[in-house]
Amino acid sequence: MTFFPFPIRNLSMPFLRSNLLTASCHQRFMRKAILLAQRATRLVTPNPRVGAVVVKDSVIIGEGYHKQAGCPHAEVEALRQASEKARGAVLYVTLEPCCTAGKTPPCTQAVIDAGISEVYVGVIDPNPLHAGNGIEILRRNGISVHCGILEKACQTLIEDFSKYITLHKPFVIVKTAMSIDGKIATTRGESKWITSAKSRIMVQKIRRSVDAIMVGVGTVIADNPHLTIRNASRKYPQPWRIIIDPELSIPEESNVLTDSFRERTVIITTPNSSLEKKERLSNANVRIIELDKSGMWYNPNNILSALADLPVVSVLLEGGSQAIGTFFDAECIDKCYFFTAPKIIGGSSAPTPVGGSGISSLDSIVALRDIQWKKCGTDMMLSGYPIWNKQEI
Amino acid sequence: MTFFPFPIRNLSMPFLRSNLLTASCHQRFMRKAILLAQRATRLVTPNPRVGAVVVKDSVIIGEGYHKQAGCPHAEVEALRQASEKARGAVLYVTLEPCCTAGKTPPCTQAVIDAGISEVYVGVIDPNPLHAGNGIEILRRNGISVHCGILEKACQTLIEDFSKYITLHKPFVIVKTAMSIDGKIATTRGESKWITSAKSRIMVQKIRRSVDAIMVGVGTVIADNPHLTIRNASRKYPQPWRIIIDPELSIPEESNVLTDSFRERTVIITTPNSSLEKKERLSNANVRIIELDKSGMWYNPNNILSALADLPVVSVLLEGGSQAIGTFFDAECIDKCYFFTAPKIIGGSSAPTPVGGSGISSLDSIVALRDIQWKKCGTDMMLSGYPIWNKQEI
Repeated sequence: MTFFPFPIRNLSMPFLRSNLLTASCHQRFMRKAILLAQRATRLVTPNPRVGAVVVKDSVIIGEGYHKQAGCPHAEVEALRQASEKARGAVLYVTLEPCCTAGKTPPCTQAVIDAGISEVYVGVIDPNPLHAGNGIEILRRNGISVHCGILEKACQTLIEDFSKYITLHKPFVIVKTAMSIDGKIATTRGESKWITSAKSRIMVQKIRRSVDAIMVGVGTVIADNPHLTIRNASRKYPQPWRIIIDPELSIPEESNVLTDSFRERTVIITTPNSSLEKKERLSNANVRIIELDKSGMWYNPNNILSALADLPVVSVLLEGGSQAIGTFFDAECIDKCYFFTAPKIIGGSSAPTPVGGSGISSLDSIVALRDIQWKKCGTDMMLSGYPIWNKQEI
Repeated sequence: MTFFPFPIRNLSMPFLRSNLLTASCHQRFMRKAILLAQRATRLVTPNPRVGAVVVKDSVIIGEGYHKQAGCPHAEVEALRQASEKARGAVLYVTLEPCCTAGKTPPCTQAVIDAGISEVYVGVIDPNPLHAGNGIEILRRNGISVHCGILEKACQTLIEDFSKYITLHKPFVIVKTAMSIDGKIATTRGESKWITSAKSRIMVQKIRRSVDAIMVGVGTVIADNPHLTIRNASRKYPQPWRIIIDPELSIPEESNVLTDSFRERTVIITTPNSSLEKKERLSNANVRIIELDKSGMWYNPNNILSALADLPVVSVLLEGGSQAIGTFFDAECIDKCYFFTAPKIIGGSSAPTPVGGSGISSLDSIVALRDIQWKKCGTDMMLSGYPIWNKQEI
């Protein structure tokens, strides 16, 4: 049992009923549920991150989050902790409880069985199989349901899952590191290291939050990166490493093909590339995915559909200029992290973070929403979400 | 007479002698002198910005700053305000008093004549004709002189003058505005407006602090800018507008050639360019400076020497990519302002802030010192000083 750490208003009413709590109290309990959900690692894939708390008489009597695909959902964890006391209590859950049996029974039934009297939901399940059905079932069983508590924060928790479950494509996060004059490498192609150690720690944090790290083969040839997370563990598994390589020109001595995580390497190539090389790589436990070349040197949408099948719910696109540019031109970027160092590289032919065709008229400049500027040592990090459709602004 | 606004330590000693003041009090008086110096506008060119206060019994009895070339120096202004009370008082001055007669008599004599007993100097005069001589004269006349109070801030006040007086070249400030992916324009060349209104207000503030604004002719052809300051006045005169145009390809209907400030336009060209056009422009009160082409399509060092003769002590280089790149390659940039908008333009051929050849190896990356990240609305501004010589770090 956890005592709620924030002061509750109207303490003069010792047995304040939960349904009389002020909106700000509901937000505080939902915030706790969000904090629980944020503990989830990529073990949940392809499920969303969800947190829940059970509250009775202004005291949290149960809390839980979804830890891993196949394990109990957040509501079930919280209800188990509350045990018998859950009868007549209030449930706060960041996402609408599921109403269909997957690897675990439907949560709606668990909520009903536990005798919960009231449910506060952060966000409706974007999964078309659930979308509002769970809430409907609860209401039909006499439970009072309220939606949209801290909705935006709850939505952010499942931003990757929302795209994945509705479009069967992973959420694409771009990360790039550059000098203040917008160069990701020198004219000779050197790029290690432009940004500071603190920025690189932040990058590790971002890498831990995704299912896959993706680069174009040019980046492998130029930098020979490992594309791993430090201190991978059972809780923090090594993400997939996706190399976009239509001609299969990746050097066979590359770190991603020879290190101890090579079974986590996936090469996206075309049917035209060398059969012998594909066979050698497959024998070394590297996965090969063949896609038809169509129009562009590769098609971001086809790549994303293939990744969704792995399953990959979120992918971090780390470069290079051409790969990010192609995804930008195809409007296939969902979120961005730009790291900028206070250093100058110069050179009209030095590569920039976003290559490709780009926009031609400033009327179609791609603004970012929900931007955050954050200092990382002497560097600056900008995060935000590209606004592809002007109506979204 | 101005009462010092900060609490003075040891108030139990009512007639605290100035030479017993703590170091922190000396800094506070020097800070006041710096604030006075900062009031100076470009009317001081080619002189430095200087501020001074006269203090007696912990009270400021005189203050002044150098307002305009040919007008009294800061010390003289402050001593005049203190009048007879200056006898036995302490003088705080951001820059070593001059010891030679220019348009005004030497300040050292004024300090001696006023009966000042002690002088606190921020920074030694970088002018080789003065450099320490002023201090020496004061000491020979029995005045106690202390140097280096808030030295760095006092040095910053005269950073442009220091370069000008030692190298006979203006201090070069680069300002550039770009998208977060490091583009100053689209692939089609559109560049108005990438950054926000707040950033543009900041740019106006920077323009007011310089003697000249400089661009390559490509920027004039692409954007047809006015390169003016808003609300110019007697106190804030319109800066020179310098166009680097070796082939004299500037369109004659350009704003800088036709607006009401055209006598403030200077075109840097070569002897090879059209004589007729030069004559037409000269007749329209536009200044033409001819430089030999030597090696590069123009030589930044020759341009700077020519500008020093105007006189220009500080010049703001606003673009474009090629012009800034050429100055970068020649290590002719002293200070930078990078404005970044949270927007993406993309395109591998879209221009970046610093073109030219750039560096080839990251070992020679040009770091900035004394960096400041500052929010300008939704944009971010970075200011700093390029470190050209690794020993300076």
